[in-house]
Amino acid sequence: MAISFELKHVCKQSGARYGILHTPHGSFETPIFMPVGTQATVKTLNPQEIKEVSDGLILANTYHLWLQPGEKIIKKHGGIRGFMKWKGALLTDSGGFQVFSLSELRKISESGVEFRNPKNGDLLFLSPEKAIQIQEDLGADIIMSFDECPPVDASYEYMKDSVLRTARWAKRGKEAHKTDQALFGIVQGGLDKELRKLSVELTTEIDFPGYSIGGLSVGETKDEMAEILAYLNPLMPQDKPRYLMGVGAPDDMINGVINGIDMFDCVYPTRNARHGTAMTTQGSIQIKNKRFEEDLSPLDPGLDSPISKYSKSYLRHLFKADEMLGYRLLTYQNLLFLKQFTAQIRQAIKEDRLLDFKEEFYKSYYHQKD
Amino acid sequence: MAISFELKHVCKQSGARYGILHTPHGSFETPIFMPVGTQATVKTLNPQEIKEVSDGLILANTYHLWLQPGEKIIKKHGGIRGFMKWKGALLTDSGGFQVFSLSELRKISESGVEFRNPKNGDLLFLSPEKAIQIQEDLGADIIMSFDECPPVDASYEYMKDSVLRTARWAKRGKEAHKTDQALFGIVQGGLDKELRKLSVELTTEIDFPGYSIGGLSVGETKDEMAEILAYLNPLMPQDKPRYLMGVGAPDDMINGVINGIDMFDCVYPTRNARHGTAMTTQGSIQIKNKRFEEDLSPLDPGLDSPISKYSKSYLRHLFKADEMLGYRLLTYQNLLFLKQFTAQIRQAIKEDRLLDFKEEFYKSYYHQKD
Repeated sequence: MAISFELKHVCKQSGARYGILHTPHGSFETPIFMPVGTQATVKTLNPQEIKEVSDGLILANTYHLWLQPGEKIIKKHGGIRGFMKWKGALLTDSGGFQVFSLSELRKISESGVEFRNPKNGDLLFLSPEKAIQIQEDLGADIIMSFDECPPVDASYEYMKDSVLRTARWAKRGKEAHKTDQALFGIVQGGLDKELRKLSVELTTEIDFPGYSIGGLSVGETKDEMAEILAYLNPLMPQDKPRYLMGVGAPDDMINGVINGIDMFDCVYPTRNARHGTAMTTQGSIQIKNKRFEEDLSPLDPGLDSPISKYSKSYLRHLFKADEMLGYRLLTYQNLLFLKQFTAQIRQAIKEDRLLDFKEEFYKSYYHQKD
Repeated sequence: MAISFELKHVCKQSGARYGILHTPHGSFETPIFMPVGTQATVKTLNPQEIKEVSDGLILANTYHLWLQPGEKIIKKHGGIRGFMKWKGALLTDSGGFQVFSLSELRKISESGVEFRNPKNGDLLFLSPEKAIQIQEDLGADIIMSFDECPPVDASYEYMKDSVLRTARWAKRGKEAHKTDQALFGIVQGGLDKELRKLSVELTTEIDFPGYSIGGLSVGETKDEMAEILAYLNPLMPQDKPRYLMGVGAPDDMINGVINGIDMFDCVYPTRNARHGTAMTTQGSIQIKNKRFEEDLSPLDPGLDSPISKYSKSYLRHLFKADEMLGYRLLTYQNLLFLKQFTAQIRQAIKEDRLLDFKEEFYKSYYHQKD
């Protein structure tokens, strides 16, 4: 198998896990945050910069790359890594989430999902087998089973059917899978504990080298997410990595880690950057705010970063003037911030003081009072 | 005086000039191309990259920086160089060209120009003295006199009045100028040789450390531009640098150099990049073209560039997917191409073979047949 996972330590204060994920393109301490390179580019950054602001493991989206430029062109480059000249490790999602969230005219059947390409209206079909084939062509180290992610307010009956179907799809995907890329199973079930338990049982029965948790961070409250994660924690296999899909806000990450999560991805830091929100060691700030117009101080003295040389005033100017360099510099800042943040989380776990770290962090980042 | 110019060699084959321009922030061989950093950023690039793809002398636009963020904020940063963290040398234009090309409701009087801020409709006033004050605050090494750039089809009477007024404005600007920044005079006169001669006489009489040629590359044909430059060449002072404003297409640059030009600036390479046009040693190509969809070859094997590692297929994908990294990578390519191109021009001048180089270049870049 292409990957392996070592659970090295469990935080005595919080129960959070510290581990090492071994992949063909590097070994990574967990918990880890994976920056999102949707279209074979972490927006605005080159591979050298991605290396600087990540731990070396990033994500790309199967759905987008399947539609543009197509997986066969990427395969000719030796996969996404060769296509974008990324020397680190890589994970792809299955495309399922985007089919359900971005496409219109979905027709779900046992065999798969028929939908229209939003770009040109073409009818397309994605199935468990097709999702595996595309991901094999894309060539990531870690790939995902094709799953359905129903809306958070779907009925119990629909959700149960969906959980059963997703498990059948996972089995079909595993059977179709030919390479030694590590294929993860995905646990669904919305906010219903019984269905979550069922999904864990059915998915772990198939046996995967890692498990993702889908269907969270899709509109539910933070408390609802935390409750499901706490419920899932003891049910999930201890010796396999657990990946909480689509989560990257600092508070959600800490609470995820406390509930046994090892891996995260999210467009949160890069999308924030696009909108002028800088994540700093003193909290997040909206750089376009008028109060930074004449602020000559550096963006984040608490982060050892090449971005530190620029004044807040200059960064604000770049956004006010619609200059892309602003977006690029904040993307770098936000990802580097999350990299430092996850390193601090790992250190706190190893030192059995993650709850203390959480309290300190909420004070410094969210300005939470005692 | 902050700058000085040494004319080192005149090409025996073409009459083109090779020289050295000394500034407080570096000495530069001429002919030189100056990348445009309109809003205190060469679009998409950071200062380290600007250093790599330029000779170390760039341009910023007074008009844009006056309106956003305002020259006083930039002055607080120690000028544009401190604002954008650029350690090289810098030139600013006077703002005149933008007032005449971008603004509506211009009212030109002897004292200056009244116009509306296109962003918010505010009435603004720019005069020779104001243009100097703003440029002193912006703090470039080389600054420009405030001039009028009339449309290429203006009447003889209007153009003559304008030439006389621009000369009076140049004198007022010189009188208002207090710093040791090098203030250039600007020669106008459209396509009328008599008026061009008058403008040279009036402007050189005031005596500046360098002279710009304005009012070209504004809609006239390439032949018309070349004819005016050839006419101006013997009239202009030999011992001062000559800057042809707003010109950066390779053929225009070669023909400018043959007619005695030492300095160029243009948004041509960066704007080309934005639209997907790559300037390469084999000619320019539109990277969005379908024929590059599966083209795994590097963009430009003739240029020693970090961009060379990417395939044309990947670069095309970035543009098709509206990814900014594509714009960024082509900006780097196009500026590096022009840097190499001007180095080749200088070498050819020193070796008295610029006309031979021109012929070779037209074959390789424009695919001109014998």
